[in-house]
Amino acid sequence: MTIQKCVFYGTIIDTPDPLTLRVRKHHVCVVNKGRIEIIEPSASRNLDEHQDYVFIKLSESQFICPGFVDLHCHAPQYRQVGSATEVSLLEWLTKFTFPNEARCSDPSYAQDLYTKLVSRLLRNGTTTAQYFATIHLEATKILAEICQEKGQRAYIGKVCADQNSPDFYIETTDEGVRNTEEFINYVHHMQKGRDIAGTNALIHPVITPRFIPTCSINMLSQLGQLAKKYDVHIQSHIAETADQVAFVHYLYPSIGDGRDVAIFRETGLLTNKAVFAHGVYLADNEVDEMVASGSGVASCPIANFLFSKGITAIEHLRRRGLNVGLGTDIGGAYSSSMLPVVRAAVFANRTMDFVSFDRSNATLPFFPEHKDAVVDFKFAFYLATLGGARALNIDSQIGSFEVGKQFDALLIDCNKESQAFDYWNEDEMDIIFEKWVNAGDDRNITGVWVQGVKV
Amino acid sequence: MTIQKCVFYGTIIDTPDPLTLRVRKHHVCVVNKGRIEIIEPSASRNLDEHQDYVFIKLSESQFICPGFVDLHCHAPQYRQVGSATEVSLLEWLTKFTFPNEARCSDPSYAQDLYTKLVSRLLRNGTTTAQYFATIHLEATKILAEICQEKGQRAYIGKVCADQNSPDFYIETTDEGVRNTEEFINYVHHMQKGRDIAGTNALIHPVITPRFIPTCSINMLSQLGQLAKKYDVHIQSHIAETADQVAFVHYLYPSIGDGRDVAIFRETGLLTNKAVFAHGVYLADNEVDEMVASGSGVASCPIANFLFSKGITAIEHLRRRGLNVGLGTDIGGAYSSSMLPVVRAAVFANRTMDFVSFDRSNATLPFFPEHKDAVVDFKFAFYLATLGGARALNIDSQIGSFEVGKQFDALLIDCNKESQAFDYWNEDEMDIIFEKWVNAGDDRNITGVWVQGVKV
Ligand SMILES: [Zn+2]
Ligand SMILES: [Zn+2]
Repeated sequence: MTIQKCVFYGTIIDTPDPLTLRVRKHHVCVVNKGRIEIIEPSASRNLDEHQDYVFIKLSESQFICPGFVDLHCHAPQYRQVGSATEVSLLEWLTKFTFPNEARCSDPSYAQDLYTKLVSRLLRNGTTTAQYFATIHLEATKILAEICQEKGQRAYIGKVCADQNSPDFYIETTDEGVRNTEEFINYVHHMQKGRDIAGTNALIHPVITPRFIPTCSINMLSQLGQLAKKYDVHIQSHIAETADQVAFVHYLYPSIGDGRDVAIFRETGLLTNKAVFAHGVYLADNEVDEMVASGSGVASCPIANFLFSKGITAIEHLRRRGLNVGLGTDIGGAYSSSMLPVVRAAVFANRTMDFVSFDRSNATLPFFPEHKDAVVDFKFAFYLATLGGARALNIDSQIGSFEVGKQFDALLIDCNKESQAFDYWNEDEMDIIFEKWVNAGDDRNITGVWVQGVKV
Repeated sequence: MTIQKCVFYGTIIDTPDPLTLRVRKHHVCVVNKGRIEIIEPSASRNLDEHQDYVFIKLSESQFICPGFVDLHCHAPQYRQVGSATEVSLLEWLTKFTFPNEARCSDPSYAQDLYTKLVSRLLRNGTTTAQYFATIHLEATKILAEICQEKGQRAYIGKVCADQNSPDFYIETTDEGVRNTEEFINYVHHMQKGRDIAGTNALIHPVITPRFIPTCSINMLSQLGQLAKKYDVHIQSHIAETADQVAFVHYLYPSIGDGRDVAIFRETGLLTNKAVFAHGVYLADNEVDEMVASGSGVASCPIANFLFSKGITAIEHLRRRGLNVGLGTDIGGAYSSSMLPVVRAAVFANRTMDFVSFDRSNATLPFFPEHKDAVVDFKFAFYLATLGGARALNIDSQIGSFEVGKQFDALLIDCNKESQAFDYWNEDEMDIIFEKWVNAGDDRNITGVWVQGVKV
């Protein structure tokens, strides 16, 4: 893999904070050894010393923006993505999800499926993905190799589940823990030698108890010990549905208060490298505990709409200090692109301000005051980029364009013949960006870079 | 315009009712003079007598489905579609919407904009659209001509507004009424001679008071008289936001109960050819009155999420007997394709079942029972096709595939190199259809027919 030295000249767009769309026009962005060396107004910069660099001049309809961070993706469920959206959660699990996950016991099946998935995500501009694989060590290694080969920044977990799973898709406590440790060592070995300017590896192992109901306390505790031993990332699900919360409480009433956060804490899994999916039904004291631990939440609004009977109260959680990013939740949700997730995050936020009223009252004369919505397209884009990086604790490395950060970026062209929206010459760059976020798609993504490498 | 005689052979998908996805595999559909002559299992049909027809054999990855009915689209706002989604309603109106509408006083501007819009909608599979144009007679005629020329089934209204509008975009009562009548006559004249097998014209005039706040009671009443005189369609907005409901009540407290439904009734505008956008804040007695009148609602879920602080309670309204379809609400919403609207309708419905709970309670031990969601992808697809046709009172003509109905159809190919989702050979047709509805786009639409004519 060759590390390109590039100079981009044109418009650079990112969201350094949730309320700011930063549009830097007529700028140069110099990338060397995977990192951003210079970002400056082009007029102020003599580039004579960069003549050996690849020079990329953006047109008036083009800009670069950060690549997407997908915090929550079940790789084996890519087989069903887009379907099974109308069934109950139980039918979704037993008829589609468990069988599809079990098929990854066949390495060649996994090779084919995961190749399609990673190609698709890269094409959609997802430069960083955090994956749940399956309980199978071999297939999980295959996913790591594919990400490495295709150049996607990936956080990958072998799923652990030693109970409450079907006979054809379960492991013993010992197998789960042993294979997790082997996978950690495998990935760490893979990453040796691949050291870009002395910084991050591309592929990272993640300790991955599926969710509390499928894990014995013994398994959770041993996984917590592995997390400590290797100082690696952790992922699971938290407070996703009312039924799940009730089931956890039924299983483990006396571990803490019998809820997800307490059980993760007690088993050593609530760390600053942990990201938990959903967080719909978190109580405020639980949020505060997660904040204190440094863990984050992957909000998956499409899946929440479809299955959770509620949404992640992103703004409420963030106000308390919690790090929140977004996830596709492939295949509980149907999008393999982060753009529909960004749009759904806006919808989800608006539901927090919904006015309730009594339809049976014929005159409905009074409506309550309502506050303005907070999560707009730029806030949601922030969540899908820098917010996700912050949840993974890698915001010093990626998520926005700053000198010293790694260059994980998309080249967006909003003047493609085939694209999904129209655009006028008078449109300013912030308008063009908003149109792409709201109505564009992968047809506008004409280049994807991870660690400065075009993938 | 040539009327093709076609025989389609392959899979035919439609939604004859909201709960049924009808997948007819290995069927023939014979289309002649714009109408469906035959739909039968192909094995049972000898087609020797149709040798002079164009024969279209669908592949395993292709199907035909009904074209979309977009019940609510502001044509002049196409200029801003995809942007201005994060501003307040007031800023949206004054900074973007009124200025963009006013620009249509220039016929050449309107010609260019409306050509782009109608082309885009047809490409997105919208075979029927109900448009708000602007207050300008000339530009509204231009929209009618463009739809006629491009072959889109269109219901088009010259917008009426004689008060509460900016100086640069307002008309007198007399102008509004007179130009509406002239537009009705213009369209009726246009449609003479264009009579496909003695049935529907392609273009239809619609009486279009913008919404009650911008119309004097005198104007509304005169428009009601025109509706009676010409027996034409009517469109406006109804119960869209809490602020709008309150404003109407402030303006006209003594017309009926001072709310939209009563005022439309009192002015002769609540008919079985009337379709009102939104209907978010309808009281049950108002719904019942709309049902009795035969009028319908255009639910625009994307716009409702963004601006209404609530959604159309589609299932609740339908249970009381109201006809409901879907609209893009270009440009209050950002999608010019009905597919994101279909997806947003599913989200909107799920919010009706959201569980509420007290986050400040540390233990949250009990959750209420919840009912299953109703509006799934096939229900929403029904709303976007046959449901919309029913709201327009043309469900005997379009919206599904039945012998005798007009052929407004899309040829969908789910095996395009460039498409947005992956597909496996083992996927059944209902799965492929669901994947397209959830994750596909115009790249899969490879043919569009209106009244049997490929457009
Ligand atoms: Zn998940
Ligand atoms: Zn409207």
